[in-house]
Amino acid sequence: MRTDPSNGQAGESRQTYDQKLEFVLQRAAEVFAERGFHRASIRELARATGMSLAGHYYYFRSKNEALFRICDHVLRQILDTFEERAKAIDDPLERLRLLVFTHLEISLSHMREMKVLSHEAESLRGEYLAKIRQTKKRYYDSLASILREIRGDRRGNGRDLRLAAMTLFGSMNWIYTWYRPEVDGEAKRLTDFMLGIFLRGFLGGEGATARRAGRILRHPSR
Amino acid sequence: MRTDPSNGQAGESRQTYDQKLEFVLQRAAEVFAERGFHRASIRELARATGMSLAGHYYYFRSKNEALFRICDHVLRQILDTFEERAKAIDDPLERLRLLVFTHLEISLSHMREMKVLSHEAESLRGEYLAKIRQTKKRYYDSLASILREIRGDRRGNGRDLRLAAMTLFGSMNWIYTWYRPEVDGEAKRLTDFMLGIFLRGFLGGEGATARRAGRILRHPSR
Repeated sequence: MRTDPSNGQAGESRQTYDQKLEFVLQRAAEVFAERGFHRASIRELARATGMSLAGHYYYFRSKNEALFRICDHVLRQILDTFEERAKAIDDPLERLRLLVFTHLEISLSHMREMKVLSHEAESLRGEYLAKIRQTKKRYYDSLASILREIRGDRRGNGRDLRLAAMTLFGSMNWIYTWYRPEVDGEAKRLTDFMLGIFLRGFLGGEGATARRAGRILRHPSR
Repeated sequence: MRTDPSNGQAGESRQTYDQKLEFVLQRAAEVFAERGFHRASIRELARATGMSLAGHYYYFRSKNEALFRICDHVLRQILDTFEERAKAIDDPLERLRLLVFTHLEISLSHMREMKVLSHEAESLRGEYLAKIRQTKKRYYDSLASILREIRGDRRGNGRDLRLAAMTLFGSMNWIYTWYRPEVDGEAKRLTDFMLGIFLRGFLGGEGATARRAGRILRHPSR
């Protein structure tokens, strides 16, 4: 669960712990992204943070735990931020826009974590793997339910909804392989572009929903 | 370069060599996809083919060479097959359809190779890396030039074209993470779906090209 440092309940030591954890996760993600999970050693993780092995064990007891925390942290950050932002919003088109924007915004500032999540999460075993799959499933279900609501379930079937969700996830998740900030611009520009392609394609450019989607693409709330 | 076994120029020994190479590449891709490039040893590659180490060296002198051959082979297979199929076809919409269909068809029968290409190609060094990047660049240029032709270069700019190409590649390349043949159907169905979303989105659903795209989506030549 993400902890909001501005939260009054969080004492200072908890805050310091969270900040250090964030730093340690970031460095561990760099090592895994660069060297690969299997090649990296727990010593390398400790070296990357400038900590002793003992200090490092305070945050992770094993390489597997480090991998789990990296994947879990970035996935939940996307999901929690989206849910927080979409809390007061009923319109499924606006909700979809927020989902895409949040996914892209957090991905752009966590490219290494997204690479590690894509390449290494399936190296996890047991409960760690089960938890990551559960969170991914929760995320997939969020997207699928928004798409179902947008389409009003009039056309197509569940298989089409799955393909649509995976098509959109694919476009968004592939960016760590090609994104260059100086060429491709910020999260908002990527959101406008990818959501524009996806929504016009998904809705087929006809009907009241497609016209409303056009308006939301031109005048987003965020 | 792909060698066509039906080609009269290819003698029998060349044919046998190519078939064995195909088999060896397939097994090596399985080992890399399962164990990761860095963890797999050349001994494991040899064991997976049932060959002696010496016999194995006849096909690859090193693990790096094996990785290069896997990536190069599947990339060229997509590109060469597409170019062969699109040779006599002028319509850029039909060419795009063939590109997507060929990419998806070969990906579905080479999931492990596509995973290895996505995860491990950047582990290559020197000339091997340069060659793979060159082939990827050639493929990207093919797609970008088709998209430019479809749009008639009237709208948007080069940055948009790059985003459009990457959005489409993302949808197609992500499938190795989720595709299940019993649920998701064959390459033709995936092509109809992904190309439909992309083309309607890319063309905006208006104008003569969009109407022609609608016809091609309903009545493809292949």
